[in-house]
Amino acid sequence: MKLNVSASLTYSFSSPTQVIAAIEAAHSPDQTILSEELWITSGPALIRDTEAASGERRFRTALEGQVGINYRAVVDNGQRPLLGPDARQHDWAELPREVLPYLLPSRFCPSDEFMRFAQREFRSVRGGGARVLAMLDWLNAHVDYVHGVSTAKTTAEHTFIDRAGVCRDFSHLGITLARAMNIPARAVSAYALALKPPDFHAVFEVYLDGRWWLLDPTRLAPIEGMVRIASGRDAADIAFLTSEYNCQCLSQVITVTQAPDEAETRAA
Amino acid sequence: MKLNVSASLTYSFSSPTQVIAAIEAAHSPDQTILSEELWITSGPALIRDTEAASGERRFRTALEGQVGINYRAVVDNGQRPLLGPDARQHDWAELPREVLPYLLPSRFCPSDEFMRFAQREFRSVRGGGARVLAMLDWLNAHVDYVHGVSTAKTTAEHTFIDRAGVCRDFSHLGITLARAMNIPARAVSAYALALKPPDFHAVFEVYLDGRWWLLDPTRLAPIEGMVRIASGRDAADIAFLTSEYNCQCLSQVITVTQAPDEAETRAA
Amino acid sequence: MKLNVSASLTYSFSSPTQVIAAIEAAHSPDQTILSEELWITSGPALIRDTEAASGERRFRTALEGQVGINYRAVVDNGQRPLLGPDARQHDWAELPREVLPYLLPSRFCPSDEFMRFAQREFRSVRGGGARVLAMLDWLNAHVDYVHGVSTAKTTAEHTFIDRAGVCRDFSHLGITLARAMNIPARAVSAYALALKPPDFHAVFEVYLDGRWWLLDPTRLAPIEGMVRIASGRDAADIAFLTSEYNCQCLSQVITVTQAPDEAETRAA
Amino acid sequence: MKLNVSASLTYSFSSPTQVIAAIEAAHSPDQTILSEELWITSGPALIRDTEAASGERRFRTALEGQVGINYRAVVDNGQRPLLGPDARQHDWAELPREVLPYLLPSRFCPSDEFMRFAQREFRSVRGGGARVLAMLDWLNAHVDYVHGVSTAKTTAEHTFIDRAGVCRDFSHLGITLARAMNIPARAVSAYALALKPPDFHAVFEVYLDGRWWLLDPTRLAPIEGMVRIASGRDAADIAFLTSEYNCQCLSQVITVTQAPDEAETRAA
Repeated sequence: MKLNVSASLTYSFSSPTQVIAAIEAAHSPDQTILSEELWITSGPALIRDTEAASGERRFRTALEGQVGINYRAVVDNGQRPLLGPDARQHDWAELPREVLPYLLPSRFCPSDEFMRFAQREFRSVRGGGARVLAMLDWLNAHVDYVHGVSTAKTTAEHTFIDRAGVCRDFSHLGITLARAMNIPARAVSAYALALKPPDFHAVFEVYLDGRWWLLDPTRLAPIEGMVRIASGRDAADIAFLTSEYNCQCLSQVITVTQAPDEAETRAA
Repeated sequence: MKLNVSASLTYSFSSPTQVIAAIEAAHSPDQTILSEELWITSGPALIRDTEAASGERRFRTALEGQVGINYRAVVDNGQRPLLGPDARQHDWAELPREVLPYLLPSRFCPSDEFMRFAQREFRSVRGGGARVLAMLDWLNAHVDYVHGVSTAKTTAEHTFIDRAGVCRDFSHLGITLARAMNIPARAVSAYALALKPPDFHAVFEVYLDGRWWLLDPTRLAPIEGMVRIASGRDAADIAFLTSEYNCQCLSQVITVTQAPDEAETRAA
Repeated sequence: MKLNVSASLTYSFSSPTQVIAAIEAAHSPDQTILSEELWITSGPALIRDTEAASGERRFRTALEGQVGINYRAVVDNGQRPLLGPDARQHDWAELPREVLPYLLPSRFCPSDEFMRFAQREFRSVRGGGARVLAMLDWLNAHVDYVHGVSTAKTTAEHTFIDRAGVCRDFSHLGITLARAMNIPARAVSAYALALKPPDFHAVFEVYLDGRWWLLDPTRLAPIEGMVRIASGRDAADIAFLTSEYNCQCLSQVITVTQAPDEAETRAA
Repeated sequence: MKLNVSASLTYSFSSPTQVIAAIEAAHSPDQTILSEELWITSGPALIRDTEAASGERRFRTALEGQVGINYRAVVDNGQRPLLGPDARQHDWAELPREVLPYLLPSRFCPSDEFMRFAQREFRSVRGGGARVLAMLDWLNAHVDYVHGVSTAKTTAEHTFIDRAGVCRDFSHLGITLARAMNIPARAVSAYALALKPPDFHAVFEVYLDGRWWLLDPTRLAPIEGMVRIASGRDAADIAFLTSEYNCQCLSQVITVTQAPDEAETRAA
């Protein structure tokens, strides 16, 4: 699918503040960036980072006063296959080395605390895709999507108890349950078509059958309309803005629309 | 039922240590102490405290070195009625003033965190006794009795996630769920007949239909064989030994046996 | 000192909600209520509770829709003595029985976690008043008064790490340090003269030398201008409004002014 | 320095259990492995992993029953320079991309919670090496080395409050303080000469002046006698054994001795 994505962020920094931003679509194997533009209204030149393996990009700079950060791209996100029940679960021995860290608990996804619960709830389901789909059903049945009950420091433990949260919280709990059953899982930030209201989306991926599968535990946006930004152990790794000191977000406008593909354009 | 109860505790205190002990059967309206004996192998005279309303007793002293604390009593614990589904739940306005604190969250029973879960799980069950019995069924179905997975600082939050614990943990989670549904609940320490291995038992009570009802969420000991010691908001209030500094428990032997009642004695 | 105090609270309840309110000045031995008035704009008759020992008062009712809760009183708060360094610390054996619970850790004041720190920091200071005054100095030197960094669920542990908070947080940490050194301490809600901006104030008391001493760890209001409302183990016990479900506070206006005493009145 | 290191671990696995072990000396640029041997008493062939950039090694296998895991190596750990006060602190813009994750909070090192404390305590000290050395002094002055007060789940928050811990806890708190002041820091597992009793050691590194500097916050072992095993965000990443299910460690014997270097050997 060809998608137009854009982010217009305005921040206020009361003193010169170092930041790392992850808002650019990843140059990952599963999507093609057809065109893009990044501009900051003020500040020094950007340091641009690209992770070789994943194609994920971040930029670093130091900002002061009121600053606009803007990004616009046209991305072909290809074919995003949907996880089916038959996707096979790997033994640890079969996993690529770089996947192993995603088996471990992390700050917001303390999967070691959930091993007994996950066993109780999901061991009767066939391993692999079927088990992950059962976890998504469980999340859907037991957690409410509610704004304002969680913060940037909310862990999967809290969400499990409180039974409510937003996309970040659903993903953290989904990752936690997967890891608790030995399934590698990681957090992913994305631009998402049809998300209402439009915003950066936090989803997650599991590694099964030799590849990562993108999942939206909130079921608020279709997988085939997602443009990948960054991935990591949990939300801390994929923040769209990491700043040295607190700063104030004055406005944030995200848009994602379907771009007419060439055939359609020609026909018109 | 007439019961012989005894506790023989041996502690080692590396320096003079102030302690408060709650090991004596309560002089509560629901039981009668037929005879009793309390002796400490060394140390100054005891300060004896009795709470007028509840008849609960504690003693204070300061101990040093190796000390034996011993208690023995014969108690008639009367008739302990079993909670039935029809016990009526009160509005706050109907509750005795002294019951109100048991509606509030406490350290090990943070019921305010569980309101959404409790509503989801138990609102479809009729209020009052039926709802509390449903909570006990839930605990029995979802939490394993396992030694060694919890400590004196384990909260109901942890037990809810970990799905395992001992009597203290079961009671904390039971209290938490009850309070989350507006049912006053409090922790109770007890001598319990038929508990294996014999130990102080941690159970809880809910206030319904004008009285407190004793419950054992572990289902390890019959309610009719319990002798009440102390009650409070959670385990911190009913510790059998509260000490100023850490001390070492060298041995602890609890026994509870049924005493022949007079009729039987006479017959023999 | 003679003080006029008033609270005008407006809440919105989306459904009929049971509440317990603690906004009335206590009928405690240390203050005299010269006149008072309590009125609620709608709702059923109030259940009025008074604790015999402390004179603390709460009322219960069930409210719906937009409701104003208003209280106005003239209180002579007598002489509030200031804690001096020589106030003597008691052995546990000397304490009145009803003071003992204030030695224990509670949810927001987990003093058992702070024993090593308190020993390190304060054992070199003489026990009793001097030690408590050293704790207040420590709080003043190490914690910033900052709005917005804490919530109703913030514990003394968080405040100790974050080094910032509001009156509730300062009091919780003060209580925690005192209990960690075996000094009974409890939370107190109050009307406070000269507090800017005017609000309910959260302070605390320690038990030394045979009596409770009122302390304001924020140093924002003078002790002699305080009117006592309620006391308890920590903030949960002294909330000015405990409600069954979440409700919305639309406005809250507190005023405390010095009332002209009779002599002055006559002179005018 | 040339060092003989060895680890003999015996575990009992009640069912077939997947494990990842990190006990081999790293093939890192700062040390040379002169000879080594790794043998497991039973189990399938090992999957061996080496991280290209760091030379860190792990092996994966699945074990059952009682199993011995043994490693023995002779390592020349070269020259380990000691951090001096003049080591320069980098702006984020100057850091190598792969160092950036070590600026972020992690589960056991939640540095975002400590920003105000770190600023209060260390902002008056010159940035860079001097500031890190001040942090080590602070740790030494304020935290006691005590066995048994912490577990594998203890965070830097707990250690900061409790003021006691073991090498893992000291390192977590050191890492946390460094990150809170914008200094990249990571956990390192090591074989350490002269550590008493001999054990795997948990130390940490900060990135200053264009390189990582190894530090032992417990001051129990000299930096120049350390052989690097693995590094990561915190202890979870450098566990010497990560296992799918709980397993029992029956024995663990670590030895580290100085090997005679060739010159000495020849001279003898």
